[in-house]
Amino acid sequence: MATDMPIRIGVMGCAEIARKVSRAIHLAPNATIAAIASRSMEKAKLFATSNGYPQSAKVHGSYESILEDSEVDALYIPLPTSLHAKWAIRAAEKGKHILLEKPVAMNVAEFDKIVAACEINGVQIMDGTMWAHHPRTDKLKEFLFDSDRFGQLKNVHSCFTVAANKDFLENSIRAKPDLDGLGALGDAGWYTIRATLLVNNFELPKTVTAFPGTFRNKLGVNLSCGASMTWEEDKRTATIYCSYLANLTMEITAIGTKGTLRVHDFVIPFQETEASFTTCTNAWINKPAATAWVNPPAEHTVKTELPQEACMVSEFARLVGEIKNKGAKPDLFWPSISRKTQLVVDAVKESIDNNYQQISLSGR
Amino acid sequence: MATDMPIRIGVMGCAEIARKVSRAIHLAPNATIAAIASRSMEKAKLFATSNGYPQSAKVHGSYESILEDSEVDALYIPLPTSLHAKWAIRAAEKGKHILLEKPVAMNVAEFDKIVAACEINGVQIMDGTMWAHHPRTDKLKEFLFDSDRFGQLKNVHSCFTVAANKDFLENSIRAKPDLDGLGALGDAGWYTIRATLLVNNFELPKTVTAFPGTFRNKLGVNLSCGASMTWEEDKRTATIYCSYLANLTMEITAIGTKGTLRVHDFVIPFQETEASFTTCTNAWINKPAATAWVNPPAEHTVKTELPQEACMVSEFARLVGEIKNKGAKPDLFWPSISRKTQLVVDAVKESIDNNYQQISLSGR
Repeated sequence: MATDMPIRIGVMGCAEIARKVSRAIHLAPNATIAAIASRSMEKAKLFATSNGYPQSAKVHGSYESILEDSEVDALYIPLPTSLHAKWAIRAAEKGKHILLEKPVAMNVAEFDKIVAACEINGVQIMDGTMWAHHPRTDKLKEFLFDSDRFGQLKNVHSCFTVAANKDFLENSIRAKPDLDGLGALGDAGWYTIRATLLVNNFELPKTVTAFPGTFRNKLGVNLSCGASMTWEEDKRTATIYCSYLANLTMEITAIGTKGTLRVHDFVIPFQETEASFTTCTNAWINKPAATAWVNPPAEHTVKTELPQEACMVSEFARLVGEIKNKGAKPDLFWPSISRKTQLVVDAVKESIDNNYQQISLSGR
Repeated sequence: MATDMPIRIGVMGCAEIARKVSRAIHLAPNATIAAIASRSMEKAKLFATSNGYPQSAKVHGSYESILEDSEVDALYIPLPTSLHAKWAIRAAEKGKHILLEKPVAMNVAEFDKIVAACEINGVQIMDGTMWAHHPRTDKLKEFLFDSDRFGQLKNVHSCFTVAANKDFLENSIRAKPDLDGLGALGDAGWYTIRATLLVNNFELPKTVTAFPGTFRNKLGVNLSCGASMTWEEDKRTATIYCSYLANLTMEITAIGTKGTLRVHDFVIPFQETEASFTTCTNAWINKPAATAWVNPPAEHTVKTELPQEACMVSEFARLVGEIKNKGAKPDLFWPSISRKTQLVVDAVKESIDNNYQQISLSGR
């Protein structure tokens, strides 16, 4: 049956993260690695060899060349952010479905052009937020949207920090204004914003206000920042913090009227095959002593056969398969949450650039 | 030996929290309950009986009366915040040492008057922040100030929320402007600010900025708010969140250049006899797979024979004993950190009252 053919994915660029995603394509049961492209044929060959690519995988010495490859259904694009719009639009025009690394663009206007190109050409687009596809994430949502166990959200705090070394801070594309010009905000901050949106059932905040204390490198790239957000009607608030300058930490703490959710490894779980989270409902202090908790937090563990990045590839390939084999329309959920995440990234940047002014997202 | 005589503590007011502290005075080896006072003799008697007070404890039908009791060395004052200045100053003038509930005053100017009265009269003052005295807190400090395990602080987030019931929100003194007029900020927020200061080795922030989303009751009392803080030179930042409207949650997440500290029950430990915390140093992601952590967090548990509130009473009684029996001077550390905490409480309030403006603490 045609529907059983794995989706043929080409990898566009030899970024470090492409190693992980190449392995994920190997692991995903409904996808196969069809090609690799680099601006240098030699680099592409070396990448294919050192990442166990099958003999059948084609090696392209230019990005243009992989776009013309008729045996490629979809492209994984881990290029520097400043190149996303150019190559994602070209890929869409060639009818290639797109798995696009985050941040999806330098700003939401750029992303809207990518989405428009995908729409015109009927191709799927999804961003590379791996943890969204971990089976744990569904369990988090079950708890968060359970009015008995969690109630109504009041506050969520999310942080993602990583202690980059000197070489990274000076030489990585993540620290260069003309490549990944959004720095830590577009990278680590992307995840905290996505987590915040997920906890808010993807309702955009009404306001975004960066807080003082942003740190930039000499080239002006953001290495560390934080922001608060509000959803006015319900008096919900959120804070995020992201940094390249502090020990690896990745937290979500979501507090509702009845419950609390904590995740300590939301971006990359401590272990590949399982992931935990902590829930707490109707916690109180014992009476009259007031010296211990009633209903303290409890830990839950979710096992996974496929690592989260392979779950992501598998879901992407499934959607592509629906379009290719069954004439389905592209799924619009994934680009819609990419856009919302980018909108908030843009608003944090705008607030920082305007002396930490409050930014309204009304109408955006 | 005179130094072996327990310190005689009088309790000034029959607040709910006075039950817990009465038990703590019973438990503390160097303190004894000498007296109870209420504005009503009947209420005072009932409180003494129902809290297992010794026969020797005197019962006073007015606050004035307990101040005249020559067999009382020190007073525990859990009165509403708006009454602290009046009664703490009178107590100091009568030579009584003071264990004062938090928030210590309605504002720092009031607290300065209390401290001045204590200084003139040579009496000890300490606030009622119990968790500061848990042996776990010393272990937290050991980690935080270890340059190998934690490095330099970059960000700390602390929250304390409690889901108050309707009756509390309408009738508690904590929700009335003329009693505990600082609301959730002076109560739950006090602890988050104290935690933030502790993590910063009690260095005051340079700026405090409340973030949008403060919620007040009909009388204008703060039921929920948050703020960010900066320590500019080192680009350290902090965020706090406090609320009476969300499930019981009490967190510290402190992130340094090399390490991360997490505490999930910092105000009242899950259990009375032990308390845990999590540390993590030089965490990284495995290479090249990038699918799991190297050096993931590890949990540590600290056992305690005395509950934290008894540790607090014991430390207070020890300091009073040093003064009473050995002619020592009052210890100035405790009032100095009370003052800093109150200063930040005041700054958060000032920021909220001024449309979330940034408040500078320079020179305060």
